[in-house]
Amino acid sequence: MGSKRKIKYGMVGGGPGAFIGEVHRMAVAVDGKTKLVAGSFSSDLQKTRQMGQELDLDQDRLYDSFEEMAHKESKLPEEKRIDFVTVVTPNHLHFDVCKAFIEAGINVVCDKPMTNTIEEAEELCRLVEENNVIFALTYTYTGYPMVKQARQMIRDGKLGNLRKVIVEYPQGWLAEPIERKGENKQAAWRTDPDRAGVSAVVADIGSHAENLVEYMAGLRLKELYADIHTFVEGRELEDDANMLVHYEDGVRGVLYSSQISIGEENDLKIRIYGDEASLEWRQEDPNYLHVKYPDKPEEIYKRGNPYLSDEANFVNRVPPGHPEGYIEAFANIYSNVADTIAARIHGEEADPKALDFPTVYDGAVGVHFIHKAIESGKKREWVEMNYQPPGKG
Amino acid sequence: MGSKRKIKYGMVGGGPGAFIGEVHRMAVAVDGKTKLVAGSFSSDLQKTRQMGQELDLDQDRLYDSFEEMAHKESKLPEEKRIDFVTVVTPNHLHFDVCKAFIEAGINVVCDKPMTNTIEEAEELCRLVEENNVIFALTYTYTGYPMVKQARQMIRDGKLGNLRKVIVEYPQGWLAEPIERKGENKQAAWRTDPDRAGVSAVVADIGSHAENLVEYMAGLRLKELYADIHTFVEGRELEDDANMLVHYEDGVRGVLYSSQISIGEENDLKIRIYGDEASLEWRQEDPNYLHVKYPDKPEEIYKRGNPYLSDEANFVNRVPPGHPEGYIEAFANIYSNVADTIAARIHGEEADPKALDFPTVYDGAVGVHFIHKAIESGKKREWVEMNYQPPGKG
Amino acid sequence: MGSKRKIKYGMVGGGPGAFIGEVHRMAVAVDGKTKLVAGSFSSDLQKTRQMGQELDLDQDRLYDSFEEMAHKESKLPEEKRIDFVTVVTPNHLHFDVCKAFIEAGINVVCDKPMTNTIEEAEELCRLVEENNVIFALTYTYTGYPMVKQARQMIRDGKLGNLRKVIVEYPQGWLAEPIERKGENKQAAWRTDPDRAGVSAVVADIGSHAENLVEYMAGLRLKELYADIHTFVEGRELEDDANMLVHYEDGVRGVLYSSQISIGEENDLKIRIYGDEASLEWRQEDPNYLHVKYPDKPEEIYKRGNPYLSDEANFVNRVPPGHPEGYIEAFANIYSNVADTIAARIHGEEADPKALDFPTVYDGAVGVHFIHKAIESGKKREWVEMNYQPPGKG
Amino acid sequence: MGSKRKIKYGMVGGGPGAFIGEVHRMAVAVDGKTKLVAGSFSSDLQKTRQMGQELDLDQDRLYDSFEEMAHKESKLPEEKRIDFVTVVTPNHLHFDVCKAFIEAGINVVCDKPMTNTIEEAEELCRLVEENNVIFALTYTYTGYPMVKQARQMIRDGKLGNLRKVIVEYPQGWLAEPIERKGENKQAAWRTDPDRAGVSAVVADIGSHAENLVEYMAGLRLKELYADIHTFVEGRELEDDANMLVHYEDGVRGVLYSSQISIGEENDLKIRIYGDEASLEWRQEDPNYLHVKYPDKPEEIYKRGNPYLSDEANFVNRVPPGHPEGYIEAFANIYSNVADTIAARIHGEEADPKALDFPTVYDGAVGVHFIHKAIESGKKREWVEMNYQPPGKG
Repeated sequence: MGSKRKIKYGMVGGGPGAFIGEVHRMAVAVDGKTKLVAGSFSSDLQKTRQMGQELDLDQDRLYDSFEEMAHKESKLPEEKRIDFVTVVTPNHLHFDVCKAFIEAGINVVCDKPMTNTIEEAEELCRLVEENNVIFALTYTYTGYPMVKQARQMIRDGKLGNLRKVIVEYPQGWLAEPIERKGENKQAAWRTDPDRAGVSAVVADIGSHAENLVEYMAGLRLKELYADIHTFVEGRELEDDANMLVHYEDGVRGVLYSSQISIGEENDLKIRIYGDEASLEWRQEDPNYLHVKYPDKPEEIYKRGNPYLSDEANFVNRVPPGHPEGYIEAFANIYSNVADTIAARIHGEEADPKALDFPTVYDGAVGVHFIHKAIESGKKREWVEMNYQPPGKG
Repeated sequence: MGSKRKIKYGMVGGGPGAFIGEVHRMAVAVDGKTKLVAGSFSSDLQKTRQMGQELDLDQDRLYDSFEEMAHKESKLPEEKRIDFVTVVTPNHLHFDVCKAFIEAGINVVCDKPMTNTIEEAEELCRLVEENNVIFALTYTYTGYPMVKQARQMIRDGKLGNLRKVIVEYPQGWLAEPIERKGENKQAAWRTDPDRAGVSAVVADIGSHAENLVEYMAGLRLKELYADIHTFVEGRELEDDANMLVHYEDGVRGVLYSSQISIGEENDLKIRIYGDEASLEWRQEDPNYLHVKYPDKPEEIYKRGNPYLSDEANFVNRVPPGHPEGYIEAFANIYSNVADTIAARIHGEEADPKALDFPTVYDGAVGVHFIHKAIESGKKREWVEMNYQPPGKG
Repeated sequence: MGSKRKIKYGMVGGGPGAFIGEVHRMAVAVDGKTKLVAGSFSSDLQKTRQMGQELDLDQDRLYDSFEEMAHKESKLPEEKRIDFVTVVTPNHLHFDVCKAFIEAGINVVCDKPMTNTIEEAEELCRLVEENNVIFALTYTYTGYPMVKQARQMIRDGKLGNLRKVIVEYPQGWLAEPIERKGENKQAAWRTDPDRAGVSAVVADIGSHAENLVEYMAGLRLKELYADIHTFVEGRELEDDANMLVHYEDGVRGVLYSSQISIGEENDLKIRIYGDEASLEWRQEDPNYLHVKYPDKPEEIYKRGNPYLSDEANFVNRVPPGHPEGYIEAFANIYSNVADTIAARIHGEEADPKALDFPTVYDGAVGVHFIHKAIESGKKREWVEMNYQPPGKG
Repeated sequence: MGSKRKIKYGMVGGGPGAFIGEVHRMAVAVDGKTKLVAGSFSSDLQKTRQMGQELDLDQDRLYDSFEEMAHKESKLPEEKRIDFVTVVTPNHLHFDVCKAFIEAGINVVCDKPMTNTIEEAEELCRLVEENNVIFALTYTYTGYPMVKQARQMIRDGKLGNLRKVIVEYPQGWLAEPIERKGENKQAAWRTDPDRAGVSAVVADIGSHAENLVEYMAGLRLKELYADIHTFVEGRELEDDANMLVHYEDGVRGVLYSSQISIGEENDLKIRIYGDEASLEWRQEDPNYLHVKYPDKPEEIYKRGNPYLSDEANFVNRVPPGHPEGYIEAFANIYSNVADTIAARIHGEEADPKALDFPTVYDGAVGVHFIHKAIESGKKREWVEMNYQPPGKG
């Protein structure tokens, strides 16, 4: 690849014991294109310092608050200051943090869901446009090479006209009220309306399912009918959500997410049916893409092979048969973001394949989806998705 | 086994070229408990005679019409007359044929769906009770040993309290308007409202999915919301149906059936989630049952092993690792029916395990389900299942 | 189909409690082409009579001995006498029984392995030629449609020139000395040199593996090096056998069979590699055939589809996605045998596709293979297969 | 984790375009425990400098030769000099490079196979002991968590006494003479006796298979009989190797490796049979471990679950259902090495779980194995493994 210098980044959130911050740091490290140089890992400066030491950072790049960090970093000379910030705080803080960095002219990579309210999501879109920063949202599953392969095959018309989509995302880890046992921070904040917002399971994983359909099939959701339920007594937010979905162009299907599907781990699966062929992909077996036809044998496309699309192979690391997984998918988003930022730094045109990462508009679609799903569940009615992001070319 | 003499049966429908009649004849032959002795295979007596010759039947047991057959067979001495009739005509004829034989006091095995209208279905229930005949409906998939294993495990509380069911039945063979090409009789009558009734895909395969839930999990459907659609232009009945479903005791889930899911063959699959464990079974891989837990390894139960329930092993034929398939599942229904009829003939109590076959009430539930699904789809509303069959003990 | 009349057959062996006799009766019944009319099911006439009654046979077609049966049946008028006999006795009796019927001019279907000695095997070949009878050996696995598909693809050159074959057949049911617990007759005779001959596991299942290679790939074994072992203490015959194998035309590979592979059920699997493509088939998942290429996606061929070869579809019964299993594979051998016999009866040319069943020469190859494997294991040397059956066209 | 400071490392080999060097750099980066600070990436200093710039290294830590690097690094103050070197040159250079660093007192991580000759391998063992350095060999597959789980279960006696091992490693990428097309450097050096030594396929992947048995099952190979062959005309080294293998304690089995198994990618698979249970693991589906029993359902152990052994979870990164792959397995070796080196630096006892990485003795066993396999193939005789490494406790 040969980027001319390493891209420097900072992190907000991801202090000691935070799960997703650690995953981001592993993912961004894989390709060696970036270098962590600054951070405000916690609202507690002591913890930020502890983390900074573990991560070998300079003391003067550890900040007491994200506001301070955004402000001070933007004043540093270009060869020193961070090229982007990664935002891995709990959801309800995403908006304020992103806003601060965007307004300081700093590129942002933000974990999903983007914000807790629709208004904040739309405001972020506006801010990104206004400040002309690069903004990426880590819908991890779009990083898998075989997801990109599926996308390209659909774009190339291999399935014909699309008709039906079945996307499912069952997990089982919230089948018990573990949020009340105090030992599971993840469970605690995700089921707490004050921090998670209006939704638990739809926000946490249903939004991945929605995004995967849009990413892979290029389909906009038009309306949905959601059956929302809380199985675990005393839980305030939903833990199960089954939806009937209508996309543009007459495509329809089922989208469901669940965190009480006991025994399931992280079984995101999508099946897309056209009038000429269909395909199937499972996150738990991500190196393979199954394509089925009415009149010839099923095909299994396998990661890393020359017969795949350029888009899929652009993010490939190791040869076929050497499995790549979740961290690599995550790393692929960062790799593309890094290349895109590098191009901008050097005043070059980014490789179109590097531009392939989820944007602030994808984030806004996701936030709308979450709210519409909860609204439909409450009203027991079909609800329209009335948000139209600008086309992404 | 050792039934004292072979059970004699006749067939209505299943003439030259009829697919399902041939399947019934293969299935009923496997265990050697029965003997085909009479038939009215077609409304065309010539074809009935041709079939009778192929099947080595006596000329005087070939009938011009099912009415004649019901009438004459019932007058024969017991050692000669048929012990049951198998009804494999197109759906719209089921009612009249079944009625004729039931009223003649002859036991009936009928293909599904049982009838085209709710009134007919309820009338058959009444007739069966009144005439005290044995009536079985060939919901084939209940015949698989691992389906019986799943049922027994749920009854034994292995999953805890049930919460969620996902049952799906995608096929792809009607993705094109093959019914208009004239060469596919199956497609022609199944998509024709005059013969298939109010529904195509729900009647044909959705009803199997509904029955499988009821059989395996013992769950009664309470209400449903159906998204019904016809993808193939010009087709009069639906070819795709996605439903949100609510069962008794707060269980809910998704049930879908489709015949435009291109590339799918016969992929009936069910997942049932309790609050302690979950299970998964696929018709295309029927010898295995997957059971998943929150805190220990997934288990794969395999057909033919001593550790399975008596109910599963009662219908087992060959050792583990020697796959049994669709015909064997079908045969298991006939085997149980034959044992039950034999017990009645000999004035004995039937083995409770032999009583395990779908009844006229299962048939009636199915017919209600079909109509409620179509009704919901038209109204875009939740529709209640207001039918309560008598408990089956 | 439409055979002008049912083929009549008799059975030697398969008395009360005999496993394989029951399997043969189920298999032969599936297609309704045959009718069981005579038998000598046991050396104990009482048991033969009991069986005859269960099976609804005429008293005067139940025989005290196979010699009597062969003699008397051959004297019956053609429209009455059996068209073939099925031999399902323990292995050491196969030769005498087959000989008696062949010499009486009666067609034979014999279970495998054909005989316990090489001399007997060669004598049977001679007798079949001399008496011009139809002789079939039930190497069950050749009956699977996808095995026939694989064979046809190899014949058509789809794999290019063959290079390597890996065929394995692990079972686990003899991991314990169950033959000494007295309750398992199967285990008892198969591990007893007096009845099983020189070999247990190679004779019982290794011979299936060898035959599958020859059938599927058309490859003759040239030499082998066997590592033969008995793991269970006190057992007289081998329970595990790993072999290096060299076929004609420079093809080589591995063939192993084992009955102490604990946890395995009946996991016969074959992989064949050419210089252009390779294929893989597993008996426990028999409806699918995997084909792999160096430069395009893996393909999964599925039973029952129009894109398969005529040979595969000739023995197909139910549509794709409705699994067929072991009994159907077995039935396919009988179906072809019945068609072939019917053709001869009616003085017609048999359909070449119906001639596709294992012959007396396949049986002789198998017996040679068994002896050579044991010889190699004892000598710790390569041993040549010096038997050349006549070409089968 | 929390190592007090990052472990510093250097690299020999891995210049521009080198595949395996890049993999090592990605793997070692994942956990952020190490920092690349020095290198001699190529025998061409220009290329080393180019690589150094890409990797952001200081100019004065780029060396003209490995000798210079070993010498100069050893003279640097401890807080500056490398804590270990990674050796990723072609095989024939491993010995000289390792020797230089070991003698300079620098810890070594070396790619496999360790050396091209037995003498060199034994010499390295001696040097490691003498100089008391930490030496790790990157038998990647030992890094997978489920491999560690299998190992622990076998150690705990879950399989009972071991009986049989089937280990296979088919690849297809050398089915054509791509080494003569000039564009594939990997193929070129691996099939060239001058650089690869006495063996191609056994050295390249057969040694992984051998090591996996020893690692997982703790079994020492006693003797082997190898059928060695070259299928591709004109190729000087073998491309296919099938072996009968005898381990200590009467365990036996089959070990094969192949690079002409067209269509296979990297399908390393192992099955280990005890007298109480068996297990199966496949590298292409590495997050799952299958355990089979004679009398209860098969179990699937899944990475990341609390029910796994401490050893497996010690190297776990992301939750169950988020697949980890080849790079993570590789990273696990580095993670353990880094922890072990850190402990030594700080004068602490290393966590016993961190000591779990392949050693110089594993490397020596591998080199012996390679030579014995080739010797057996040439002689067509059983060959004994007469090398006994010291016990590893």
